[in-house]
Amino acid sequence: MKLKAVLAAACFAAAIAVADEALWQALPEVAPEPADNPTTPAKVELGKMLYFDPRLSSTGTVSCFSCHNLAEGGDDHRPTSIGVHGQKGGRNAPTVFNAAFLSAQFWDGRAPTLEEQAKGPPANAIEMGMANLDAVVDRIERIPGYRPYFEAAFGKGDVITIDNIARAIAAYERTLITPDTPYDRYVKGEKSALTKQQVRGMNTFREVGCMTCHQGPMFAGPELPMGTGFFMKFPLQTESPYVEKYGLMEDKGRFEATGNPADAHMWRVPTLRNLVYTAPYMHNGSVKTLDEAVRVMASTQLDKTLTEKQVADIVAFLESLSGELPAQTLPKLPPTPGDLLDP
Amino acid sequence: MKLKAVLAAACFAAAIAVADEALWQALPEVAPEPADNPTTPAKVELGKMLYFDPRLSSTGTVSCFSCHNLAEGGDDHRPTSIGVHGQKGGRNAPTVFNAAFLSAQFWDGRAPTLEEQAKGPPANAIEMGMANLDAVVDRIERIPGYRPYFEAAFGKGDVITIDNIARAIAAYERTLITPDTPYDRYVKGEKSALTKQQVRGMNTFREVGCMTCHQGPMFAGPELPMGTGFFMKFPLQTESPYVEKYGLMEDKGRFEATGNPADAHMWRVPTLRNLVYTAPYMHNGSVKTLDEAVRVMASTQLDKTLTEKQVADIVAFLESLSGELPAQTLPKLPPTPGDLLDP
Repeated sequence: MKLKAVLAAACFAAAIAVADEALWQALPEVAPEPADNPTTPAKVELGKMLYFDPRLSSTGTVSCFSCHNLAEGGDDHRPTSIGVHGQKGGRNAPTVFNAAFLSAQFWDGRAPTLEEQAKGPPANAIEMGMANLDAVVDRIERIPGYRPYFEAAFGKGDVITIDNIARAIAAYERTLITPDTPYDRYVKGEKSALTKQQVRGMNTFREVGCMTCHQGPMFAGPELPMGTGFFMKFPLQTESPYVEKYGLMEDKGRFEATGNPADAHMWRVPTLRNLVYTAPYMHNGSVKTLDEAVRVMASTQLDKTLTEKQVADIVAFLESLSGELPAQTLPKLPPTPGDLLDP
Repeated sequence: MKLKAVLAAACFAAAIAVADEALWQALPEVAPEPADNPTTPAKVELGKMLYFDPRLSSTGTVSCFSCHNLAEGGDDHRPTSIGVHGQKGGRNAPTVFNAAFLSAQFWDGRAPTLEEQAKGPPANAIEMGMANLDAVVDRIERIPGYRPYFEAAFGKGDVITIDNIARAIAAYERTLITPDTPYDRYVKGEKSALTKQQVRGMNTFREVGCMTCHQGPMFAGPELPMGTGFFMKFPLQTESPYVEKYGLMEDKGRFEATGNPADAHMWRVPTLRNLVYTAPYMHNGSVKTLDEAVRVMASTQLDKTLTEKQVADIVAFLESLSGELPAQTLPKLPPTPGDLLDP
């Protein structure tokens, strides 16, 4: 009987160990790349130029960098972003860091890939305000200094196309990753990388049920092929007092993109990486602090009220998912013809 | 008689050589620094952070970098700039590159130093839109990660002040210089640095009278102590057809700042460096190309109509005043509390 108990305990421990290994995954050191857009240095260089170039917007004032600022958290630290003519968007800018690992892009997952995502903001009337994607191509065509960079990345000929613009930006974004967080080092075996409180928070995070949705190396759902996305209803507990307090049901999420009633209030599960840099939180940027975000999620998704100790521990754990942001050199952009941006 | 003629010719040549040396001056390799704000690495690092930080604006969307983009020409390639809430300013953004060498700042020279200039845009309602300079200090105070950088630059204590913010930004701007243009190399003796056409343009530039105003290493007037500024009436020839065509008298220049009738249509003489990167031209950004700018200035200031060859030669010379822009690494900004920028 005693032997049996010991064996059972050992098996249980082994099962836990296996489960743990599957459960806690480090971020890969390299982002996956699609077969039709391998990451090359020339493409990354061009993509960085385009990413930083405000001339991709109608007024010449808004670039990818404007709302996805690489000097801070890959976002814009506003509740919701501001595009051309001072117009306010409806959702909080998600960080660009590690977006390369997400299985779908945008809060509602409406773009299957980074390439598709990159084609969204330029022709969005509120964001970068170009009339359409042809106007974006025309704008770039009118900056003669860009051509050599397109040819280096894509070969000679008719290479200044919206698809190549998007490919280059996506290739650059695949370099914007933060794989070396304390959490990642811990998972890889460096047990001193996390504090005791962070380890406690890690366990609480699992025990209370956060990993129902926030799992995998991105804590954004299970690993899925690109274009799939992992969607979840939010808020689930519509009676939670936080729902009204933070206006969490005003935006119908994926429904706004698909028109399908089944998609009402469905959202792509957002990553939990780099939250230290990306306050305020939620799709509408209504929640100002990380501890409040933890309370809101526990209430609206798990119907739980956490103790303040549980909240503090989980916050400590979440902080371990923030990494050193990769250093960036500013690209040098080709000169602007004086008639490019008329008043 | 023959000897006399030879001697006279030699003296004349010597006089020309001396004059030439005084006439054509290279840009110094280091910008001058005021006694009360020596340039230190800690100050430059902090200044760069502040320069890139859009949180110095009311909406969190406009930084120094927004209108003085270091990825391109130190300006914003628009006729006139756009600040918070999509508001359009009245004048063309001057390049920040080499501003450290100017004896007065802004188109109308209303700020004697870079330090004073830096205090202008943040509390300008159209530009960065902060209520006042105290609000700027408060904004920075509320980003805790800034404090160590201020202490490294200015010592312990009450060091987060508007003066120190301005000092740091100015110190950084003193590193944004382009001393190594083809023109500068030519003046220092590298005679192959300019093409034949550029040398011809250099002589034409002098002969037709451009150097009445555009002289010194910055081509922005004679070298003057900081705070002095070199002002000139523009347009001088109010009958020039370009005056109406380009609306050159709509803005009264320095008069708008001083209210002194004697300052009507007086302007600080702008630098001619890096014009390759800073189209469109003039205080109102109305002139799209460099060749047209040369025609306009010859007509409005010198009452001359240049030949197309003269224009092309002068443009070629002016192009030699554009240098390699100094490479910049993006600063890393301290994280933003979620309630910093309320909607």
